Formats: sequence, structure tokens, C-alpha cells
Amino acid sequence: MRNVMLEIEYDGTDFNGWQIQPKGRTVEKEIMKVVKKITKQEVKIFGAGRTDAKVHARGQTANFMTESKIPIDRLPKVMNRLLPKDVSVIKALEMPKNFNARYHAIGKIYSYHIYNTRIRSALISRYSYHYPATLDIELMRDAAQFLIGTHDFRTFMSTNSNVRNTIRTVKNIVIDKKEESICLTFEGNGFLYNMVRIMVGTLLGVGRETIEPERIKFIIDSKSRKNAGCTAPPQGLFLERVIYSEEKKDIGTFHLSS
Amino acid sequence: MRNVMLEIEYDGTDFNGWQIQPKGRTVEKEIMKVVKKITKQEVKIFGAGRTDAKVHARGQTANFMTESKIPIDRLPKVMNRLLPKDVSVIKALEMPKNFNARYHAIGKIYSYHIYNTRIRSALISRYSYHYPATLDIELMRDAAQFLIGTHDFRTFMSTNSNVRNTIRTVKNIVIDKKEESICLTFEGNGFLYNMVRIMVGTLLGVGRETIEPERIKFIIDSKSRKNAGCTAPPQGLFLERVIYSEEKKDIGTFHLSS
Repeated sequence: MRNVMLEIEYDGTDFNGWQIQPKGRTVEKEIMKVVKKITKQEVKIFGAGRTDAKVHARGQTANFMTESKIPIDRLPKVMNRLLPKDVSVIKALEMPKNFNARYHAIGKIYSYHIYNTRIRSALISRYSYHYPATLDIELMRDAAQFLIGTHDFRTFMSTNSNVRNTIRTVKNIVIDKKEESICLTFEGNGFLYNMVRIMVGTLLGVGRETIEPERIKFIIDSKSRKNAGCTAPPQGLFLERVIYSEEKKDIGTFHLSS
Repeated sequence: MRNVMLEIEYDGTDFNGWQIQPKGRTVEKEIMKVVKKITKQEVKIFGAGRTDAKVHARGQTANFMTESKIPIDRLPKVMNRLLPKDVSVIKALEMPKNFNARYHAIGKIYSYHIYNTRIRSALISRYSYHYPATLDIELMRDAAQFLIGTHDFRTFMSTNSNVRNTIRTVKNIVIDKKEESICLTFEGNGFLYNMVRIMVGTLLGVGRETIEPERIKFIIDSKSRKNAGCTAPPQGLFLERVIYSEEKKDIGTFHLSS
């Protein structure tokens, strides 16, 4: 048996998220169908994490066990020939037997993209949130400092979730602006359901000066979803990378467009 | 009567091109429906040029005559509220009565985007041509020099076209490479049907060393479509700008992605 890890990129627009559901296309299902076709075996896919409908990924990871002898470096090309256009396998690696893409992940990096102009753009509407109001980026950066660290992030969790341990560590938040494109990058040891999108919605409230940066401390401590901002829409969110080792990496920024 | 010019952006993926057709969605039709709804009048839309199915535009232009009193600077926002997500009006201008978006255009700029890696990408598949072979960019640049100038470009016209005057002036071709993304930018006084895509297909032949740069001269002179390269697929092509005055502009390059 071999344990194969895949690094997967997808355009989430036409997917009902990562995880197999009774209804709708899901990325996991597309990957599973293709692995089954190639290995001629039923397989179980272990994804590093779920992403919601319309959320994209540049570096989702997953693993599966197989007896197939297919050379690992040929796997991406072979799978991509069978996968639909909006999913691609960008890397395949053979891992130790006990490796699990979900349980061995020690961190994740997400980026969120805002297109901050008066007039919306047809060409990046799939990959960003059009936000026409003027934003004070410096205030947003000040507010982000209060989110960094180890906190109980219950405030920033969808009320549809019933996860018990809501303590997470946000290692870094970088907010970058290049012309009309704003990119927020979040690195953490893990994120609660909708946590990144609720943090973004709250930081947007700070940016348009309806929430003071210092108020973030109170918002966290309140542990009440209603004190945070809106949940920013899914199309701006990208799962950039799943982190597996302690090596120090510059999280950088992930800009769209030219 | 006012003569209104629109600057229009669209994602061509789900369109059967610009021009109204008996079948399929077209951009012109979407624009016409919305103008009719706002002005409450039947209007004729004059587009600067047709684009094919799946071809995108960042700066298509069109004009129409109207008696509507709507303030010109409010028009883009009002239209965008009614237009589908894959079309947006980015600018509206009032023009002299005799202005026609097609006949007064003195030039156009197109860009063509190639994603030059072994493994395809799901996230830019709508907006670029995945071309895995190694390309010699210097050879492509050498070859492009032979295309610049005033020539009979019959060789580079789709055999489905029956335009009589096939003489065009290509003012400039810039080929730029940034990591795995190659962008070819073409400026000319006008382009024949499929001309940019056939020039790209031919330059790709040069890049992978199946056509020598100097052969371009013979290919042009032959006036025979079969001597040129393939027609590059539509999803890499963007109509960047329609030019209306003689002012000198740096055509620059139009890169996707980060």
C-alpha cells in the first residue's frame, strides 16, 4: 500500500464546496471518481479541510491509500486529463504510511481578495468581493493586530457550527493594497467554520470606520457572534496552502490581476 | 438626442461572442436589453468590433443614440445593477452626434495570455491557453518583428471570412514573460477575422522551433492560410482597448495573476 498526497487547485465557483454532499458537484467527489478510475479501486480521500461553496483553493491537500503502481510524478498529468477544467492536481507526493492530510496539518494560509472600486469588474467577479466604499487600510491593520495571537475565537464562528474547542492561534495577518486590489492574508494553526470570512467582514467594518480598532478586543472577549461584522462572501476566499512542518515561511501576499 | 459611448468589460467564457446571434447569449444583447430597460426605448447598439465566443474584453466600446436624460456619470452603476455578473460597463461618455464606435476607431490593442507550465491550472483556465511545451521567447520576439508593419495579412485570416481589403498595419507586438505567464500584446489599426489568434499560433510554432523566425516573411507573402500556424484558442484573448485618437500611448503589457 502507498500513501499518496495530492496538492489540489480549484475554482470553487461551480462547486458546492470540497466535501461530498447528497446534492451538487463537490471537489472531493471529482477527485474520488478520477482516483477510482486510475487505480481501479474504491478509495477514501482524506482532505486537509473543507471549503464552502464558491471558495477557491490554490493549495488544498488530500491523501489516499492505494495499491496502484502508477509512478507518482506522472499522477498529476494523468489525473488532470480526466478532471474537469475547474480542478487540477498540481503535485503528488508519496508519504509515510501514517500520514493524514487533515490530522498532520499544523497550519493553513488563506487569502481574501477585495476589489475596492466604485464600478464592479466582470473579469474578477468570480475571484473577489467588490466593495465600493472607501476603506482606511491603516485602521484595518491596527485592528488586525488584536486578532493575532491565541484566543477563544467563538465570536468568529458561524452559529451553524458546534465545534467545542474554539481556541485557535492566528500567527499573522498581512493586509496589502495594490491599486484597487486589497489582499488580506491569514496564517493560523487552524480556523473555525467561517472564521476567516467573519474576520474579514469585521475588518471591513473597521476600514469604513464603523468599528474602532480597539473594539476588536471586546468583540473577541464577548464570545458572541452578533458583536462581529458580517460574513464576507465566499468568492473572495482562497485556501492558499496547508502547512505540515515547522519550517519558517514568509506568508507573503497573494495578489490577483495586473 | 444624445450619443452615448460605453466602455465595456466582459468575461467571454459563457457568451457566444459580442454580436447578437439567433442562438446563445451575446454581450450585445445583454447591453441592448439593459439600455432598453433604462431608456424605455428601442435602441441600436454600435459595437467597435465583434469578439468570438469565449474571447474576453477589458475595453470593448459601443455607442447608442438616446433621448433619455439620465446623468451620464450615473449610467455605469445603473447599468451594472441590471447586467449579469460577467458583463460590466466601466465608463460612459457623451460623444458628438456623428461619433460611431466602429467607424471612428483608429486602432485596437489585444492581449493574448499563455500559461506555460507542465501542469495546467484550474484557476486561470478561463483566461489563458495552457501550453506545456518549452518556448524560446527570443525566437518569438525575432519572428514578431516580421509581422510588424503594413502588410497584406490574408495568410492570417480565417478562411470563413470574405473581407476584401486584407491590408492592415500592425504597429507593435510586445512579448513579455513573467514566471510561467507569457503575454503577447498586439497593437494595430485593425485586425482581420482570427488574425491575432493565428499570429499567436504561428509565433508558438516559432517558440517551439518548428518555424524559423525568418520564415514569417514567406508566410505573409504566400497569402495562404495553410502556411501559418494553428488558430490559438479563444480563452487566451482579450480586447484590451479601442483607440480613437492619435495620441501616443505605451501599449505596455497586460499580465494576469500573481
